Amino acid sequence: MTQLDIVGKSFPQIAAREKASGYTKFVTDLVRPRMLHGRVLRSPHPHARIRSVDTAKAAALPGVRAVITYADTPQIKFGPRSEDWTIFADDKTRFHGDEVAAVAAIDLDTAEEALDLIEVEYEPLDYVISPIEAMAAGAPLVHDDKPGNIASEFKIEAGNVDKALDESYVVYEDKFYTSQVYQAFMEPMSILAEVDLSGRLTIRTGTQIPNMMRMTYAKALGMSPENIRIIVPEYGGGFGGKMENNIHLIASVLAQKTGQPVRLVNTRHEDFLAGNPRVPMHFDIKLGATRDGILTAKDVNVVGAAGARLVYSQVIVSTACYRVDSLYRFKNVRAKGYTIYTNTVPTACYRGFGNSQSTFVLESAMDELAHQLKIDPAELRIKNGMGPNETSVHGWKIASSGLIECIAKTREAANWDQKKKDKTPYKGIGLACCNHVSGNHPFAREFDGGSGIVRIGKDGRVIVYHGESDMGQGQNTTFAQIAAECLGVPMDVVNVAQVDTDISPFGLGSFATRGTLMGGNGVLAAAKDAKKQLVKIASELLKVPVDAVQCKKGLFSVRQSSQKTLFSGQSSSQKTISFKEVASQATIKHHGAPIVGIGFYKPPTELPDPETKKGNISPAYPFGCQIAEVEVDPDTGQVTVTNFYAAHDVGRAINPMATEGQIQGGIAQGLGWTLMEDMTYENGKMNNADFVDYIVPSCFDVPDVKTFLVEPIEPNGPYGAKGIGEPALNPTMAAITNAIYDATGIRIKKLPVNPQKLLAAMKQSK
Amino acid sequence: MTQLDIVGKSFPQIAAREKASGYTKFVTDLVRPRMLHGRVLRSPHPHARIRSVDTAKAAALPGVRAVITYADTPQIKFGPRSEDWTIFADDKTRFHGDEVAAVAAIDLDTAEEALDLIEVEYEPLDYVISPIEAMAAGAPLVHDDKPGNIASEFKIEAGNVDKALDESYVVYEDKFYTSQVYQAFMEPMSILAEVDLSGRLTIRTGTQIPNMMRMTYAKALGMSPENIRIIVPEYGGGFGGKMENNIHLIASVLAQKTGQPVRLVNTRHEDFLAGNPRVPMHFDIKLGATRDGILTAKDVNVVGAAGARLVYSQVIVSTACYRVDSLYRFKNVRAKGYTIYTNTVPTACYRGFGNSQSTFVLESAMDELAHQLKIDPAELRIKNGMGPNETSVHGWKIASSGLIECIAKTREAANWDQKKKDKTPYKGIGLACCNHVSGNHPFAREFDGGSGIVRIGKDGRVIVYHGESDMGQGQNTTFAQIAAECLGVPMDVVNVAQVDTDISPFGLGSFATRGTLMGGNGVLAAAKDAKKQLVKIASELLKVPVDAVQCKKGLFSVRQSSQKTLFSGQSSSQKTISFKEVASQATIKHHGAPIVGIGFYKPPTELPDPETKKGNISPAYPFGCQIAEVEVDPDTGQVTVTNFYAAHDVGRAINPMATEGQIQGGIAQGLGWTLMEDMTYENGKMNNADFVDYIVPSCFDVPDVKTFLVEPIEPNGPYGAKGIGEPALNPTMAAITNAIYDATGIRIKKLPVNPQKLLAAMKQSK
Repeated sequence: MTQLDIVGKSFPQIAAREKASGYTKFVTDLVRPRMLHGRVLRSPHPHARIRSVDTAKAAALPGVRAVITYADTPQIKFGPRSEDWTIFADDKTRFHGDEVAAVAAIDLDTAEEALDLIEVEYEPLDYVISPIEAMAAGAPLVHDDKPGNIASEFKIEAGNVDKALDESYVVYEDKFYTSQVYQAFMEPMSILAEVDLSGRLTIRTGTQIPNMMRMTYAKALGMSPENIRIIVPEYGGGFGGKMENNIHLIASVLAQKTGQPVRLVNTRHEDFLAGNPRVPMHFDIKLGATRDGILTAKDVNVVGAAGARLVYSQVIVSTACYRVDSLYRFKNVRAKGYTIYTNTVPTACYRGFGNSQSTFVLESAMDELAHQLKIDPAELRIKNGMGPNETSVHGWKIASSGLIECIAKTREAANWDQKKKDKTPYKGIGLACCNHVSGNHPFAREFDGGSGIVRIGKDGRVIVYHGESDMGQGQNTTFAQIAAECLGVPMDVVNVAQVDTDISPFGLGSFATRGTLMGGNGVLAAAKDAKKQLVKIASELLKVPVDAVQCKKGLFSVRQSSQKTLFSGQSSSQKTISFKEVASQATIKHHGAPIVGIGFYKPPTELPDPETKKGNISPAYPFGCQIAEVEVDPDTGQVTVTNFYAAHDVGRAINPMATEGQIQGGIAQGLGWTLMEDMTYENGKMNNADFVDYIVPSCFDVPDVKTFLVEPIEPNGPYGAKGIGEPALNPTMAAITNAIYDATGIRIKKLPVNPQKLLAAMKQSK
Repeated sequence: MTQLDIVGKSFPQIAAREKASGYTKFVTDLVRPRMLHGRVLRSPHPHARIRSVDTAKAAALPGVRAVITYADTPQIKFGPRSEDWTIFADDKTRFHGDEVAAVAAIDLDTAEEALDLIEVEYEPLDYVISPIEAMAAGAPLVHDDKPGNIASEFKIEAGNVDKALDESYVVYEDKFYTSQVYQAFMEPMSILAEVDLSGRLTIRTGTQIPNMMRMTYAKALGMSPENIRIIVPEYGGGFGGKMENNIHLIASVLAQKTGQPVRLVNTRHEDFLAGNPRVPMHFDIKLGATRDGILTAKDVNVVGAAGARLVYSQVIVSTACYRVDSLYRFKNVRAKGYTIYTNTVPTACYRGFGNSQSTFVLESAMDELAHQLKIDPAELRIKNGMGPNETSVHGWKIASSGLIECIAKTREAANWDQKKKDKTPYKGIGLACCNHVSGNHPFAREFDGGSGIVRIGKDGRVIVYHGESDMGQGQNTTFAQIAAECLGVPMDVVNVAQVDTDISPFGLGSFATRGTLMGGNGVLAAAKDAKKQLVKIASELLKVPVDAVQCKKGLFSVRQSSQKTLFSGQSSSQKTISFKEVASQATIKHHGAPIVGIGFYKPPTELPDPETKKGNISPAYPFGCQIAEVEVDPDTGQVTVTNFYAAHDVGRAINPMATEGQIQGGIAQGLGWTLMEDMTYENGKMNNADFVDYIVPSCFDVPDVKTFLVEPIEPNGPYGAKGIGEPALNPTMAAITNAIYDATGIRIKKLPVNPQKLLAAMKQSK
């Protein structure tokens, strides 16, 4: 690969200045002519029959333009995966926060006042919060047609687990639990919906999956997808939480009823009550190894709480069942997963998508095995860790792997070997590894890959169109770098268009750590196509053959290597022409048509076998290793994370600063999950649904993270890159709890561990 | 050409329902977050020195965000053609309405109040309104560096005019005057400007020339063009009047100063005072002919009033000098044009662009010649009219011409021959012809032609991008028809994107009757490119060769002609696949990339010789003939147009209903100009600058027009089409005044003729 000018260098996000100065218009800021404000009336009961809803008084309030309930919506069952959604609660509400009615009014105060005027008569019903209890005989049913509250089951098996466990030198067996946590993005869920006279609906919302959302909502509204346009303005974070949600449909129906644009913004409280937090999971794990520490088998049972309807929890539970199996050289694995309806908020994606839950469990178990086998935990991982050019138990083709280097980097930086020897009371050090994907073929089944459009206008301005979504992670900046590198132009001429389903290419969106690899390859292909067209024009203008032309830093010139042949002894080697001039000449030659490059990427993935689930689901697999150091206050149980080391195999880091930022952000979220965050219920109602009671880490809680980028060039990645979004968080929980174990001998099996819990456990163990 | 399904059929405008129901958001309706409202302080004097401007009180008014004057702008001289503009009046105001200062405030009332608080001290100067007076020695100078107030001179000569006139059997010589008239579009000039943190300016405005405007404004603001983005929302009419105007720049500077979006909407009064109305012109004409009525020579002198600065008046005056020379088989022509500064509003384009002025003059003179030679006026035109495959005196290559057929059609429909014989007192019939262009190469010099982008999304939705401008004339509908016809899909899947300089192809815009031919050919080329890609996919899906595939009415199928060869005796001839399905499969095959067709049209035009002005400036030339019947009230002088017949050679009418609408609209405007409209001055100030005093025709004034489309297939047109925008109006004035002559014997030489004037003339002639 030739010298890179842009890729591999750190750039601030292209929208950084706008965001930092408050200039950026988030969905919450958008206005449209004649815009109304929407508000949602939510169920105060975890489970109740709706005896009656009377909207007459609310509708009569001056300034109110529409009041809608289930009766006013197309009463279609729909859902992103499983058709158990309705836009409003039908005859029953199924969780505290469930959507019962909504109002559109000329201002927010009026809408708020109208909510108070809606009269709903509820008959409270028995409810169930824990998925374990929900599975028990006689538990209240969330959906009458789902016995045992079982929403979905998943099984996977490879090798002979029972035999392998029997033959193991050691088997660690235990139960774990991971809590329900909130994505805590800066901007609550929000939407601006409007309908034109043909009935075509335009939705402006911060969504990670504009194209998939469109298909789900088309079903919900009884429309065809081409009659829905989704535009994605800048939005304040997603972390997996900004996929489908009923508020989009409620605003859309309000817009349909009123013929006016309707903006609907969740309050923070509503976002807690009725967003889509992480799937809480109960695990049973058995993990076996030989005397030498070679892993023999893994057997897990996962029970996840779906909440009142399925968003993506069943896919998340299945991911928890087996994704982590490709971290090590497993031969015998088995998993069963149950996704269970509960009278809680519907749960869904949050960074890590099930793999973070199971990585916590596996990496805790690995720590236990190391302890039992008296093998250094780092060594145990090195013995088993998946290397490059290996194929995992589920047929995943690991082209590049920097796992071993990640372990080595963190181990050295943390002075691990020394610290493991020099034990200090209440101080501990812990290590955990992770793997992940860069895209996941079975998620959308018929579709994988990515695409891009690169437009170069008369003035040399480059605009990149993609179908993914920049939720704040910096995807647009990465794409701009890829396009700039390929075209040979400086970053400041490259712009990235907001995703608009009418204009952008189709893309699956930002999840499964797929954006950089899939979208990036699509953008790269488009940039190559545009470059080819420009080089042709430049070669005509420079009067040299096409293959003698290069573009670097915005200047077309003759390659050094071609200069001798072409102009031996002449001074023509100085001939250059600016990118802008070539673009202008191209547009004039083409009578106004800009240069438009179009490209796509077909990944070497496959749909897994439906029976065995075997198949290479992703073109590339990132790995990582994190080490945490903690101090535990013996009097209070307070855990302080004093040092943190993280090394991640990201393939080539397109933007090292952004990559490090992703890693540090992931660790901050993982730290919160480990030590603080838990959405808790009391009498069926969430009792900490706000930032007063639900504490997330602040800058005082997060240590300075020593970050290392391990960059094996991934053959399938754009300029060798893989993804980093999710793996950043996957090992954090176990790294911290393993350090707590090292400090206290207490094995944390339930997230989170707050001071009270740890203090109680320490007292008990004494 | 194969059977056409869409082209040649009448469709309502694609935005018709939205517009008719009030749903459409015009520029005037747009809102943006934190938007401010702008207002302009205008000079109350036609000519004055600005002694001082004190904005302190205005700036101190709560709610005012900026008050700006000349001192706050880049003090750059600029202009679309001649650099005599400044954003505000510098040390002098040069017309009543000239821009002196402007305010941005949180609402319109506050802005209005602030205007009253700006203190300006003026020293009134001598002024000049008439261009004839302005040329006289000692006249006040509008610009100190322009002696004689001469802004521009133009000369053209071919053949030997003096000799030809000498040898003529008859020479008609006279003076004519055409008045200054207002385009009277429904929506006054308006703009919404905003600036991002990088300083990039986005202008949303109804403009006919987004791309050219951008270059002019870049100069004015000291920016580079790529830092200006122009978006063209739906807007309420242009008729030539919505080109560059200082209000766009004023709003832009207000946005720059405040960092907030600024919407600035002219009041109707301001639009009269400081819009850009038609160039009033004084003509001297000599027109010679043989005894048989063969035209021998034409000699004209044109003096046009530019107003206080040049917009396009010098180009309009030059057009008035010679465009009409290609209507007939002239051999000897000469013209001199003078564009003269006056202390009036800057004048510019209005439907017909100088050719309408000179067509009035020539066709009045033709009527006089016919009278003198006792040749039927229709016959006189037939003798001289330009036919197909002829080259005019200025080298214009007339590929198709339906002129003679237009004369025949109207003549027959009006029962002309009979009516010319049966004279009834105070009833008259008049005829006039016209020619025009479909694009004008010298207008932008380096650039002619057109281009398009056609995007076909996963859902089969077609979006057409073009760089022209639909000002309400229905350009978007025409383009949609062209794309639909080419692709073989119904109209309802085709959408046309608003012009956005960031997204659309570069286009010169809507003027010179160029949209349908230039833009249409560009869109057609793009649609062909897209179709080629789709046909390839369809051929794979249908498993037949590419050339056996056709698409009609949204269905890909095997051509009848190919069925025998491919499936002799088989039933596979029924194989079809929907357009939508092919688009979806294409997107899946291309991993998300939509089908994007790009195309352009290179017209067979040339830049005229700088000396002789000879050269083929347009790929096609429309022609037309109109006949008016009038009744004159002998007691009041009131003229009633009782019948109107119009036949226009439009090449193939893509949308007959729209074409007829254009013709009828043109005639209504021409009728207003002939009988009513005149922007008049009193003490240097426009004294009828509103719709109370300036009367335009209402539906009661406009007769039912019998419209005939003459459709010779133009080889250079998309599906054989030429333009119609301007020619619709060109012959109307002379048709009516020739009819008045027929009714009364009074030759109208000054537009308009109101009842008082006609009555006085009738009395005098008795």
